[in-house]
Amino acid sequence: MSRADRFIKACRRQAVDCTPVWMMRQAGRYLPEYREIRAKHTFLEMCKTPDVAAEVTIQPVRRFEIDAAIIFADILLPLEPMGIGLEFAKGEGPVIHNPVRTMADVQKLRPIDAATQIEYLMKAIKIALKELDGKVPLIGFSGAPFTLASYIIEGGGSRNYENAKTMMFAEPKAWHKLMEHLTAVIINYLNAQIDTGVQVVQLFDSWVGALGSSDYREFVLPHQKNVIAGIKKTVPLIHFAHGASHLLEMVSEAGGDVIGLDWRSDLDVAWKRVGFDKAVQGNLDPVSLFGSKDFIRKRTKEILDQAAGRNGHIMNLGHGILQQTPLDHAEEFINATHELSKR
Amino acid sequence: MSRADRFIKACRRQAVDCTPVWMMRQAGRYLPEYREIRAKHTFLEMCKTPDVAAEVTIQPVRRFEIDAAIIFADILLPLEPMGIGLEFAKGEGPVIHNPVRTMADVQKLRPIDAATQIEYLMKAIKIALKELDGKVPLIGFSGAPFTLASYIIEGGGSRNYENAKTMMFAEPKAWHKLMEHLTAVIINYLNAQIDTGVQVVQLFDSWVGALGSSDYREFVLPHQKNVIAGIKKTVPLIHFAHGASHLLEMVSEAGGDVIGLDWRSDLDVAWKRVGFDKAVQGNLDPVSLFGSKDFIRKRTKEILDQAAGRNGHIMNLGHGILQQTPLDHAEEFINATHELSKR
Repeated sequence: MSRADRFIKACRRQAVDCTPVWMMRQAGRYLPEYREIRAKHTFLEMCKTPDVAAEVTIQPVRRFEIDAAIIFADILLPLEPMGIGLEFAKGEGPVIHNPVRTMADVQKLRPIDAATQIEYLMKAIKIALKELDGKVPLIGFSGAPFTLASYIIEGGGSRNYENAKTMMFAEPKAWHKLMEHLTAVIINYLNAQIDTGVQVVQLFDSWVGALGSSDYREFVLPHQKNVIAGIKKTVPLIHFAHGASHLLEMVSEAGGDVIGLDWRSDLDVAWKRVGFDKAVQGNLDPVSLFGSKDFIRKRTKEILDQAAGRNGHIMNLGHGILQQTPLDHAEEFINATHELSKR
Repeated sequence: MSRADRFIKACRRQAVDCTPVWMMRQAGRYLPEYREIRAKHTFLEMCKTPDVAAEVTIQPVRRFEIDAAIIFADILLPLEPMGIGLEFAKGEGPVIHNPVRTMADVQKLRPIDAATQIEYLMKAIKIALKELDGKVPLIGFSGAPFTLASYIIEGGGSRNYENAKTMMFAEPKAWHKLMEHLTAVIINYLNAQIDTGVQVVQLFDSWVGALGSSDYREFVLPHQKNVIAGIKKTVPLIHFAHGASHLLEMVSEAGGDVIGLDWRSDLDVAWKRVGFDKAVQGNLDPVSLFGSKDFIRKRTKEILDQAAGRNGHIMNLGHGILQQTPLDHAEEFINATHELSKR
C-alpha cells in the first residue's frame, strides 16, 4: 500500500498497512521553514497568495512521513465575500469591525460564490495538488456554522460567548437565520474546494464545546445536519468538534465519515459513543509532544491500543500542534504511529 | 423550614421545603454596591481587609433570597505564605513573578499555617458569621491542587497549560511533590476556615478540564482523594470541577458530599454518572441570565425537572455569574427556583 492510499482507506474504514497520521495545524509556526516565509508576509497575504499558501501546505509533507496535507487557509476567509470586514491585528488574532448582532445585520449578509470570490484558495489547491503529485491526499476545510457564527457575532475570540448565546436565547429567529445563511456559505465553500480537487474535507467546530447539550440540540444540530447533507459525497468528510466530549453522540448524529476527537476522552470510550460505524481521528494531547521521546512513544501506543487495530482510525493530535513543539518530537509521533501500528 | 436549614439539608440529601439556590461569584461586579466598594480598593486590599471582605460577602444575601453566602476571597491567597509573590495586574488577572518550574523550586515552597498567616480571612469569616446571624450558612472555599498547581507553574492564566503539563509529563516526581505540598496547604487552609465557623466548604477545580482522562487518573486523582480525606467531616464538602464533563465519574470517586456540575451536560445525565448517593449542585449556563425572564424561568424549570424532586439538589449557575448580568434577571433565577420547586 502506498502512502497515497492509507489515509483515504482509513476514512472509509477499509484495511490499511499501518495507521495513517497527520497533525492539525501542521502547516504552522513550529516549522522554521514556515517562520521564514511568515516573516515576509502578513497572515492574510499568505492565505491570498496561491504560491505561498501552496508552499506552506507542502512543507510538512517534505519534512515528515505524514499521510495527508491540509491546504493552508484561515477558517474566516469566507467572511469577506459575505460582506464582513476582517483584520488580523498583530498578536491579537482576528478582529471583525462590524459584528453581526441583530436580524437587520443578518439580512445584510451576502451569499458567496467561492469559486470566483475565493479564487485565490482554489488556485492554491491546484498548485498544491500539482506539487503533491498524488504522494498524499490534500484536505480542504471550513469552519462549522456555530464556530463561524460565534466569530461573526462576538467580533473576534471570546471567553464566554455572551453575544452569540444571547442572540440564541433572546433572538432565536435571527440566530437560526444566521445559521441558515452560514450553512449555504459553507456548502458552497467546501463544494468549490471539492470541485477543485481536494480529496477529503474537514469541518472544524472549534468553539461549540461552550454549549450545553440541549442548546446544541436545539440551536446547532439541525444546521450541522444540513451543512453535512449539502456537501458532495464524492470525498470523505471529517467532522471535528473541539472540547465537546459532552456532545459526542450528537456530533456523530450530525454526520461525517470520520469524527475528530480531542484528547479529553480516551479513544476507546469516545469511539464507542461515536459508534463503530464511523471512523475516528485523534487524539494525542498536543502538549504530550513536550514530553520525552519515550513518553511520546508510550502515549502513542496507548492510543493505538485503544483503537485495537480496528479499521477506521486516523492518528492525529487532539488539537493543533503548538508553536514551541520540538521538531524531532513531532517526528517521533509520526514515526511511532507507523512503526507501532504495522499490520 | 427556615432559609437557614435548606442548603445544609440538601447537601446531606435530606428532604427540603424547596430547592436551595446560590450563585457562584455572587459577591461580585454585577452588583452596584460591590462596584462602589471595589472603586475604593484594589482586589487584594478587599481580600485583606476583614470588614470589607465580610461586607461584600453579605451584599447578595441582603438583595436576594439566596440560601447561602460564600466568603469573599481569591483562590490564590494561600500562595503568599507558601513564599510565592502574587500580584493582580490591572485588567490582567493574577500574575506570579517567580513561577514554580523545577524540583528545586518545589522544594523551596513552605508549608502554611492559615490560622495565623491568613488571619485576615478568618477575621472576615467571623464578622460575616456575626452579621449573617444564622440567617443563611456561610461557605468557605479553596482552589483544588491541580488548579493551584497550574497557576503556580504557568505564572498566571493559561490557554494550553504547556508548563503544567510539561512538568507532569517530563518531571513527574516534581509534579507529584508539588501536588503533595499543595494537598497539605489546602487541608490546613480549609480546616482553619471550618474551625473558624464556615458551615460548608467548596473545592474549586476550575482548570482541570484541560486534562485527558488518563492524566487526571494518574496525576490528579490520588491527590484529590487525599485532600478531601484530610478535610474535617464536620461540614459538607462541595467538589466542583469546571469543564470536566469527561471526568465526572472520577471527580465523584475523588470525593465530596456534593458534586458541582457545569452547564454542559444535562443535570439528569450528569447526576446518574456522579451516582445518586451524592448530592449535586448546578447547572444553569450563566449566559442564560442574558435571556428574557420567561426564558430564565423555562430553563430553571428544565433543570428542576431533570432533578425530578430527588433529595440532594442545590440550584446554582454552572460557572460564576457574569459581570453584565441584569440584577432583575439574577433575581428571577433565584425566585423561580424557589417557586417552581415548592414541595
